[in-house]
Amino acid sequence: MSKFYALIAGTGAGTGRATALRFAQAYPVVLFARNPSSYEDIVKEIEHKGGQAVGITTDVADAQSLRRAFQTIDQKLPGSKLAAALYNVNGGFAKKPFLELTAQDFDAAFDGTIKAFVNFSQETLPLLLTSFPDAPHPPTLLITGATASLKGSAQFGAFAAGKFALRGLGQSLAREFAPQGVHVAHAIVDGVIDIPRLDHFTVNNGVEDGKIRPEAIAETYWQLHVQHRSAFTQELDIRPYVEKF
Amino acid sequence: MSKFYALIAGTGAGTGRATALRFAQAYPVVLFARNPSSYEDIVKEIEHKGGQAVGITTDVADAQSLRRAFQTIDQKLPGSKLAAALYNVNGGFAKKPFLELTAQDFDAAFDGTIKAFVNFSQETLPLLLTSFPDAPHPPTLLITGATASLKGSAQFGAFAAGKFALRGLGQSLAREFAPQGVHVAHAIVDGVIDIPRLDHFTVNNGVEDGKIRPEAIAETYWQLHVQHRSAFTQELDIRPYVEKF
Amino acid sequence: MSKFYALIAGTGAGTGRATALRFAQAYPVVLFARNPSSYEDIVKEIEHKGGQAVGITTDVADAQSLRRAFQTIDQKLPGSKLAAALYNVNGGFAKKPFLELTAQDFDAAFDGTIKAFVNFSQETLPLLLTSFPDAPHPPTLLITGATASLKGSAQFGAFAAGKFALRGLGQSLAREFAPQGVHVAHAIVDGVIDIPRLDHFTVNNGVEDGKIRPEAIAETYWQLHVQHRSAFTQELDIRPYVEKF
Amino acid sequence: MSKFYALIAGTGAGTGRATALRFAQAYPVVLFARNPSSYEDIVKEIEHKGGQAVGITTDVADAQSLRRAFQTIDQKLPGSKLAAALYNVNGGFAKKPFLELTAQDFDAAFDGTIKAFVNFSQETLPLLLTSFPDAPHPPTLLITGATASLKGSAQFGAFAAGKFALRGLGQSLAREFAPQGVHVAHAIVDGVIDIPRLDHFTVNNGVEDGKIRPEAIAETYWQLHVQHRSAFTQELDIRPYVEKF
Repeated sequence: MSKFYALIAGTGAGTGRATALRFAQAYPVVLFARNPSSYEDIVKEIEHKGGQAVGITTDVADAQSLRRAFQTIDQKLPGSKLAAALYNVNGGFAKKPFLELTAQDFDAAFDGTIKAFVNFSQETLPLLLTSFPDAPHPPTLLITGATASLKGSAQFGAFAAGKFALRGLGQSLAREFAPQGVHVAHAIVDGVIDIPRLDHFTVNNGVEDGKIRPEAIAETYWQLHVQHRSAFTQELDIRPYVEKF
Repeated sequence: MSKFYALIAGTGAGTGRATALRFAQAYPVVLFARNPSSYEDIVKEIEHKGGQAVGITTDVADAQSLRRAFQTIDQKLPGSKLAAALYNVNGGFAKKPFLELTAQDFDAAFDGTIKAFVNFSQETLPLLLTSFPDAPHPPTLLITGATASLKGSAQFGAFAAGKFALRGLGQSLAREFAPQGVHVAHAIVDGVIDIPRLDHFTVNNGVEDGKIRPEAIAETYWQLHVQHRSAFTQELDIRPYVEKF
Repeated sequence: MSKFYALIAGTGAGTGRATALRFAQAYPVVLFARNPSSYEDIVKEIEHKGGQAVGITTDVADAQSLRRAFQTIDQKLPGSKLAAALYNVNGGFAKKPFLELTAQDFDAAFDGTIKAFVNFSQETLPLLLTSFPDAPHPPTLLITGATASLKGSAQFGAFAAGKFALRGLGQSLAREFAPQGVHVAHAIVDGVIDIPRLDHFTVNNGVEDGKIRPEAIAETYWQLHVQHRSAFTQELDIRPYVEKF
Repeated sequence: MSKFYALIAGTGAGTGRATALRFAQAYPVVLFARNPSSYEDIVKEIEHKGGQAVGITTDVADAQSLRRAFQTIDQKLPGSKLAAALYNVNGGFAKKPFLELTAQDFDAAFDGTIKAFVNFSQETLPLLLTSFPDAPHPPTLLITGATASLKGSAQFGAFAAGKFALRGLGQSLAREFAPQGVHVAHAIVDGVIDIPRLDHFTVNNGVEDGKIRPEAIAETYWQLHVQHRSAFTQELDIRPYVEKF
């Protein structure tokens, strides 16, 4: 019998960590991050709870680096198959007047959203296809979107362009791969995530639960993963009860 | 300690029945339908599984009838509070050239979608507000939408008008009531439901799971109900993996 | 040779008047309003400029009244055919907490948006069909929408429901009637109209052109009317350059 | 008094040529194309009709090449200011299974849609800003979108990603620059353009006007350009009367 693992690209203190912990209840979890400091504590936390985790240092925007990361997975989890992959990479998205943006700013924004995702989905989709139909749940590719996936706000053009692109490609992949058994879902995370780094940052007048708990996103991601194939969700939004939208 | 119940308006062999069965694992369930034949078997099925169910004959489009139905709930489940309400009423939606539609056709289409929902939400929202914050999960108002919630197809104008209206009002209610603790969520069910009555109706070339399993919708509804309030989903789509969209 | 006229339902000091004046440069114009005071000055203004206008007192939400209005057109403009019809009727849309709305409030909101439009389109579409292909431009049914056509804001639920319904039905009619030569277009007017009644009402910090000039809407409506049938626009938005959106 | 010119990037036999001819009725027109063969005949045609046109060979996706093209404009039309710019560049968009796409395919798709547009808008927006408020109409940046701007179809992922990105960035620019007087508008061209190269390609059962006449697009583009700033359209769709959508 095949063993299955989950993969998180874009591991940090928020959605990445929480999703890793949630999926680790069911699968060994592989964590991709550019710096070991982004995954080391999470690996320990998962192991401490009796789960299995592998951290791999890689730059998803770099196709060669990503290729090597998957080879490392083959060595660390020999014979395992991919059950679910979360694309949670975030390019920077500083607000900036359009005419002050440099070519480097754009490339960074695109590389960190859509280009890295192209690499990631080209590596993961073939693996997900081979997991069908043996996997315990439909093999799943999850994509973290943002408010900017639906709305191009002033001075957020580069970020919006990347997030719109991600949504468009995600839709296209859903249409192409769902009939082959792979679930591609896009989540529009519309709010500020409740992570230690943003503790000083007051939103929604500081009311309780005014920031999104990463564990709540992770739970929704898990529920997307276990949906029956006759009832796939392609897109949903996630926001705090007090968020203006 | 308060007891809580769930309410399903629009009970039939598909989504209504499956949602009743799913929520009956956690709550007593009240079923609204215009004819006892729509809920009698479901009540028995729930009771057979050790759950509790109450069927009430009512026409949600008729405000007086609906008022009496809630009085009946008070008698049957004294002291119980509303944890979740599903609006699953469907007006008829025969395809028809626009110029052949009669005033009666329109009224029926509107009554069975938006007008009945206005009645239903005016009765349930005050109850859901009083369930906050004691209820085990955020009090929830669920709305079943359809492909026609997003797209007005030729010769489906009356149906689309009602479904668009339902979506618009649902959005408005989410913005008004979420900050008060009530979760209002809208599901776009885009596909044919797998119910006995439609067994003869072939879709998606008859492939396995080409129709939506009602149980899968019910499970997604349950997961919406138990979402943490820092991460509410307002809208999601549900469709078979092979559905064209 | 047939003569053609234009028809404006919902005549007031803003979009209705301006559109009447614009279309009167090409056609006799018929104005529908519930009160003669809404059209009398416009009729005079058009006649003063050398155009032809007919004001008719009618309630578009009342099918019988509307039927008589079209009979009056037959008498006043015998043998004339309908070139373009604008549905510019606005139900009231006071902001109000949902639970304070009465059944009357809803009926008024629906009657003044979607129900009146059903009446209006059932009367005008058969006329527009007979105008094809002789009319100088594709026979056109224009619909005035609003911000609430796309977004259900808190406490605007009744208005949003009506406007969503209007948009959904408009789409359906476009898909059904465009192939028969009739252009159905929906305009999302997103801003405050610059009319005398709202002179006291400051928007966009009172900057010049911060309110929408009715003449500018009318010009866009005219351009929709004269579009070639190989390049119909089904929907567009209209807003001031300084409007937040 | 300043003189003004219009600029078309992405000149071919369809929309580019027709828009050049339309705007040449009011302004000298500059045409950008990668090959002189794409603009030479159009320049002659405009001159033959008494207009003024300048063709410039440039690759909009190459920032250096584009920079030089604007220097050439300064030499050819000294002292002239930019009244309107159309971004009509189309990357290739062959349908292709996602897993067969190469990194080169993606780069080509992105370069030819979003990256070239970033270059183009960074060059044109500063010029358009200086044209306000002297220009006869609000300085305008027009963007040609496609069906894929709204929908990511199977096996069109790279194209959809670029077109979604273009739409998102266009929205952001509209929000940033409209308050400064520059009109940014996005047109979703949903259909096949009627150009000689596609004469063999039957759509909509070959009915008359089943393909979009480029002149009709050009007229709509002109009307967007001359809109009053109190009533800007940010987005509209354009499709044949018989197009399924």
